[in-house]
Amino acid sequence: MAKEGVEKAEETEHMIEKDGGKDQESVLTAGDTKEMRAVVLAGFGGLNKLRVTKKLMPEPLEGEVKIRVKACGLNFLDLMVRQGNIDNPPKTPLVPGFECSGIVEALGENTKGFEIGDRVMAFVNYNAWAEVVCTPLEFVYKIPDDMTFPEAAAFSMNFVAAYMMLFEVANLREGMSVLVHSAGGGMGQAVAQLCSTVPNVTVFGTASPFKHEAIKDSVTHLFDRNVDYVQEVKKISPEGVDIVLDCLCGENTGKGLGLLKPLGTYILYGSSNMVTGETKSFFSLAKSWWQVEKVNPIKLYDENKVIAGFSLLNLLFKQGRSSLVKIVVDKLISLYNARKIKPLVDSLWALEEVKEAMQRIHDRGNIGKLILDVEKSPTPLMANDSTETSEAGEEEEDHEGDTDNKERMPFIQ
Amino acid sequence: MAKEGVEKAEETEHMIEKDGGKDQESVLTAGDTKEMRAVVLAGFGGLNKLRVTKKLMPEPLEGEVKIRVKACGLNFLDLMVRQGNIDNPPKTPLVPGFECSGIVEALGENTKGFEIGDRVMAFVNYNAWAEVVCTPLEFVYKIPDDMTFPEAAAFSMNFVAAYMMLFEVANLREGMSVLVHSAGGGMGQAVAQLCSTVPNVTVFGTASPFKHEAIKDSVTHLFDRNVDYVQEVKKISPEGVDIVLDCLCGENTGKGLGLLKPLGTYILYGSSNMVTGETKSFFSLAKSWWQVEKVNPIKLYDENKVIAGFSLLNLLFKQGRSSLVKIVVDKLISLYNARKIKPLVDSLWALEEVKEAMQRIHDRGNIGKLILDVEKSPTPLMANDSTETSEAGEEEEDHEGDTDNKERMPFIQ
Repeated sequence: MAKEGVEKAEETEHMIEKDGGKDQESVLTAGDTKEMRAVVLAGFGGLNKLRVTKKLMPEPLEGEVKIRVKACGLNFLDLMVRQGNIDNPPKTPLVPGFECSGIVEALGENTKGFEIGDRVMAFVNYNAWAEVVCTPLEFVYKIPDDMTFPEAAAFSMNFVAAYMMLFEVANLREGMSVLVHSAGGGMGQAVAQLCSTVPNVTVFGTASPFKHEAIKDSVTHLFDRNVDYVQEVKKISPEGVDIVLDCLCGENTGKGLGLLKPLGTYILYGSSNMVTGETKSFFSLAKSWWQVEKVNPIKLYDENKVIAGFSLLNLLFKQGRSSLVKIVVDKLISLYNARKIKPLVDSLWALEEVKEAMQRIHDRGNIGKLILDVEKSPTPLMANDSTETSEAGEEEEDHEGDTDNKERMPFIQ
Repeated sequence: MAKEGVEKAEETEHMIEKDGGKDQESVLTAGDTKEMRAVVLAGFGGLNKLRVTKKLMPEPLEGEVKIRVKACGLNFLDLMVRQGNIDNPPKTPLVPGFECSGIVEALGENTKGFEIGDRVMAFVNYNAWAEVVCTPLEFVYKIPDDMTFPEAAAFSMNFVAAYMMLFEVANLREGMSVLVHSAGGGMGQAVAQLCSTVPNVTVFGTASPFKHEAIKDSVTHLFDRNVDYVQEVKKISPEGVDIVLDCLCGENTGKGLGLLKPLGTYILYGSSNMVTGETKSFFSLAKSWWQVEKVNPIKLYDENKVIAGFSLLNLLFKQGRSSLVKIVVDKLISLYNARKIKPLVDSLWALEEVKEAMQRIHDRGNIGKLILDVEKSPTPLMANDSTETSEAGEEEEDHEGDTDNKERMPFIQ
């Protein structure tokens, strides 16, 4: 799937190897050497707030790595950022994006452990969706030779979060069971693959019916995302499950806690219902926040249950736990090298196609991860393209009807 | 400490070996073969509700083991039971007690895996504080030859709960830190010993100052239980701790959560403040319940925190998880055999001394576990014994003043 991106990436890599050094970077960019293309969010709102513009290219500060970006991950969280539906949103205009892969192009002072030309993946605290990114070295990781750039961009956020939730927050062991929503998405597939590394783990997953055929090998029991998953799980396992991973929030917190076996762990790691879910209006953020049932610790005591929250970005950028994450990345790369996990890339999109890509993830049309391929040229608009008028998160009416269109969304490979 | 009890136990064991078989059990009891001594709680309330009486001796049903009891564990929970301060209290009169050790005296039908004469420890759903106990075989575990009966009675509840909290609910690993209240009690000492089996774990503990000298080797940083432990921990570790084990409840839940590092786990496993704590009246149960701050899962998400409740008795007797507990007991016995853990027995008490024993635990006078030694004769009352008039949990006035007496409490070894 990601073949085109890789070949391009390798060409560029050779160029760097030939030219070497920080001073030659100008040969890599067409036009003004101090500018770069980037996706810019002009203000919080719908898709029309996004555009690709030229921006001043950043230079690495002390301890930072400058990366020539090849591919960027697109996450559900990016839709929430676009809408401003996050805690303490930063000021706009901003360049979105929290993860990318590419080639080290320059190093700030006192930046040990990397060399120019290294193939890397990285976390960035915004600013990932650009041709060049600078980020502190603690957030940069070398990638295996046979990992493509789109794979690497699909790897960091989803696999690190899935691993830490399953093995550090919860304690996944042989014979346990896990419920994951959006099992066909990038995170769902990371969870399913990591579960398969432990013997005899049962994975319950929800996904739109059209994805079931594609993901049925990775998920033990698949349910339509529109059915009552509590009843479906209980039909198969009346006792419930050991681990619930919830990216929906709202009333799903109570449902998830109710599904736990004794000693089971519920983990809230997102709130995608705030963007697209069953609620119909833009007021869903405030609604979801208050709809979450607060938990009485004495009830947890009576029932022997665990409730947790997990935010990888807060862990990295607010709570300074990059050293823990580094250990996890090393373990994950070992699993990748042992061919036990492999990121599933849904589709590659040019930066200029970011709106279509966002629409696709909003409509839950993806199977695996959506990737922005920085070197890809945009596909010409199709006759029925309605991106400029259909803006996820701004409509007052139900967006569910749009899902009929998802098979017609551009699917570029 | 437990020497006297052990010697007696061994004598009895030899008798069983000589006489063998179920039919000879009558030689083991003095007087009426179908009666036994037991502690009976006539109604919920103060110490005056407890007495030792003769009761009909139970016989094992199918799947049950009949145990000639040598020693019983006394836990803080037993004080809460006495007061009726538990969820869905059973009907009185009842025989309290949830754990004991002794010798298998008879087996119900279909009770495989044990033989008459086996030295065992067991969980019982009430009825432990008696000369004879019958309990399903799933709650009975053989003990090592060199584990004394008082040690065994001090082992099951505290070490199993501590192990499951540290290693299954939380995920204690090298270099982490743990806060435990009542570090000098049976549970606190079990936690401290299990922490010492993992390299480089820092244990913060609260305990009354007079215990500090005795327990200072097992706890890295000891605080007076009356100081503000939040401030004391933060002075030493501004970032907080990885695991908080809270047996106090009430406002300590918020304090504990506040002390957690990112990815840290708070576990509520008791609510001893309901019995003795800072609150002054019998209304403290209801108060504590409502004083517990309910937790918003979205806050856990923002802060990357985990909150859990743990009740071993619910796990065993309501939630049917004895097979999980069996695995833990096996691991703990390996640790015991490897001399890595050893229950700390505070003192041995005759059944007739149960009131004094309860007063001692109520006043937090104990260092390690209080044990009822079934074969021990009561020590004559001391001149200043005030048990009949000082009844823990019934007073309207503050009980803290009584702690001055704790050095004078009978301390029988």
